[in-house]
Amino acid sequence: MSQFKGKLLLLCGGVGGAKLALGFSRVLPPEQLLVAVNTADDFEHYGLSISPDLDTVMYTLAGLNDSERGWGMAGESWHCMESLARLGGETWFRLGDRDLATHLERTRRLRRGETLTQVTRSLCSHFGVRTPLLPMSDDPVATMLRTSQGELAFQDYFVREQCVPAISGYFFCGAESARPQPEMMRLLSEGGISAVVICPSNPFVSIEPILALPGVRDALRDSGAPVVAVSPIIAGRAVKGPSAKMMAELGYEVTPAAVAGLYRDLLDGFVIDKSDRAQVGSIEALGVATACERTLMRSLDDRMDLACRVMQFARSLID
Amino acid sequence: MSQFKGKLLLLCGGVGGAKLALGFSRVLPPEQLLVAVNTADDFEHYGLSISPDLDTVMYTLAGLNDSERGWGMAGESWHCMESLARLGGETWFRLGDRDLATHLERTRRLRRGETLTQVTRSLCSHFGVRTPLLPMSDDPVATMLRTSQGELAFQDYFVREQCVPAISGYFFCGAESARPQPEMMRLLSEGGISAVVICPSNPFVSIEPILALPGVRDALRDSGAPVVAVSPIIAGRAVKGPSAKMMAELGYEVTPAAVAGLYRDLLDGFVIDKSDRAQVGSIEALGVATACERTLMRSLDDRMDLACRVMQFARSLID
Repeated sequence: MSQFKGKLLLLCGGVGGAKLALGFSRVLPPEQLLVAVNTADDFEHYGLSISPDLDTVMYTLAGLNDSERGWGMAGESWHCMESLARLGGETWFRLGDRDLATHLERTRRLRRGETLTQVTRSLCSHFGVRTPLLPMSDDPVATMLRTSQGELAFQDYFVREQCVPAISGYFFCGAESARPQPEMMRLLSEGGISAVVICPSNPFVSIEPILALPGVRDALRDSGAPVVAVSPIIAGRAVKGPSAKMMAELGYEVTPAAVAGLYRDLLDGFVIDKSDRAQVGSIEALGVATACERTLMRSLDDRMDLACRVMQFARSLID
Repeated sequence: MSQFKGKLLLLCGGVGGAKLALGFSRVLPPEQLLVAVNTADDFEHYGLSISPDLDTVMYTLAGLNDSERGWGMAGESWHCMESLARLGGETWFRLGDRDLATHLERTRRLRRGETLTQVTRSLCSHFGVRTPLLPMSDDPVATMLRTSQGELAFQDYFVREQCVPAISGYFFCGAESARPQPEMMRLLSEGGISAVVICPSNPFVSIEPILALPGVRDALRDSGAPVVAVSPIIAGRAVKGPSAKMMAELGYEVTPAAVAGLYRDLLDGFVIDKSDRAQVGSIEALGVATACERTLMRSLDDRMDLACRVMQFARSLID
C-alpha cells in the first residue's frame, strides 16, 4: 500500500484518533507507522499514573477496547470500583478491574525509573500491539481549563464535570519545559518521516498539547513531510467529545474551516467530510489543499478506507 | 462481662492476633476495647500504601476475611491480578479486586494528608467495624530481616520468599524516630487502660515493633495496668506463620517460656496452652503469673471463650 520511504507519523488523542490509528495499523506494517499520543490529560489518581489517551489507543489497537462505551476494556468487571464506592472513595473516574492492572504496572515501572516511552513499549508488547505508540513526551504536561467553575484539570472537566462548565481558555502546565518524545523528534529531523497525519481528535486538548511542546511545530514544518489533518468536525458537530462545544465557547465557528485555521501554520492538506464540501473554498483560501471523503468511521472497513485515502492524499502533496 | 474501669488494650499483629481481637470484640462493647496493630510490615507496592496487619484485623472484625486462605477477603475475585500477570507485572503479593479498593482508598487519603489513624477509622467505619483499631504509629516503620539471602524487607521475606531464608537478626527501620499512636499513649498515661493483652502474634515481627517505639515499653510498665500475653507457641509450634522457625534460627528454645522471656520486663501474666502446662514452672520462675487455657482458636466460640478467660486472668492480677 505505502510507497513512502519513511514512516507515517500520526498525532493522536483518544477515541477519534484511535479509530483512525487502528485503520492505519491495518494498512501499514508496524515499521512504517509511528503514533504519537497526547499525554496532557494524564493524571494521578489514587496514587496511580493514568494515561487515558495512550490507553485508549493501546486498547483499540489491541482489539481490547470497549467500543460501545468508548473507553476502557471490553468485558470489564468492576469489583474494585464497587468496593471503592462502599468505602466512600472517589468513583467519578471509573477504573475497571483489568484496566487497573495497566495503571498499576505503569506506576510500578515509572517508579523504578523507566520513562513513559519505555513503559508504553512494554505494555504494548504484552498487549500484542506491534504498531509503535509513543507518548508525546516523557515529561509531565497537564491541560488546565479556565471554566465557569474556575480552573479545572482536564479529567476533572472531562470526566467529573462531564464537560458541562463553559470554557474561556486553556493552557498546558509544564509544556514549556517538557521535552518532546526524542525518537519522534529524531525521525522528523533526519528525514525519517514521510508524512504527518493529525488525527480527528480535539484540536485544543488533544492535538495542541503535542504542538505546544518546544520545537514540535518547527520540527513538523522543517521536516519536509506533508502535514495532513482530518477534521474532527462533521456538519457542525463533533463525532464524540467536547470539540464542538469548546470551539463555540472559545469564539470559533464550529466548522472544518475553523479547525484548519487552528493548524494553518503547519497544514499542507485537510481532509473533511463529504457533507462539508461547501467548506472547501474557505479552507483552500488558507492555502491548504482540501480533500472530501467519508470521514465518519463506523466500521473497521471505514477506518481502513479512510486511512488509505488520507495516505493517498498525503502522497499527492509530496510532489 | 467486663468489670474494668478503663479500656482493654490489645497489641496485635495479623492472623493470630486478629482471631483473639475478634473474640474480644464479641465480648466487650466497642468503647471498652482498643486494638493497636503492628504497621511495621506496611509497604508500598505498585505505588499503593498497603497495611497487611491492619487489613487482616479489619477484615476479620468485619467478618469479611477469608479464613481458609488466612489473608484477604472472602469471595474475592482476581481479574486485576490476572491482567497484571499478563502484563509481566509482579504477582508475588496477591491483590484481590475488592482488597485493592482498600489500598487505593488508603493511598488516596494518605496523599491528601490524612494520618493512617484517620484513614483506618474511616475504612473501619465503612466496613462496619465499631471496635477502635489504631495503627501502632502514624509514622512509617519497616521491619527488615537479616537473612541468608541478605537484608530483606518484611513482605519480601514473608510473602515473596515464603519465609524460607534463615534469619540471623532483624531491625525496625524508622522505629527510633516514629511517634507511637498518640491516643494509645494518652490513655496509658492517664489511667484509661485497665489491662493490656499481647495477642498470640509473632513476638519478633508483630509485637516487638510496637514495643520498639519510643516510650511504649515505659508507658506500658508505668500505666499500672496488668500486662498479659497469650503464647503464640503451642507444643513447640506456631499455629501459623514463622514464629517457631524464627525463634529456632535466632537461638531461642521454641517454647512458651522463651516467649515469656522476650516480654519479661513487661509481663504480669502469661497464658499458655494446656498442653504446655509443663512450662508453668519456667515461666513463673521469671516472676510471671501463668494461666493454662485452651488457646487454639478454631471457632468463634473458641475466640470468645479465650478472650473471656484472658480477661478474667488479667482481672485477677489487678488486686
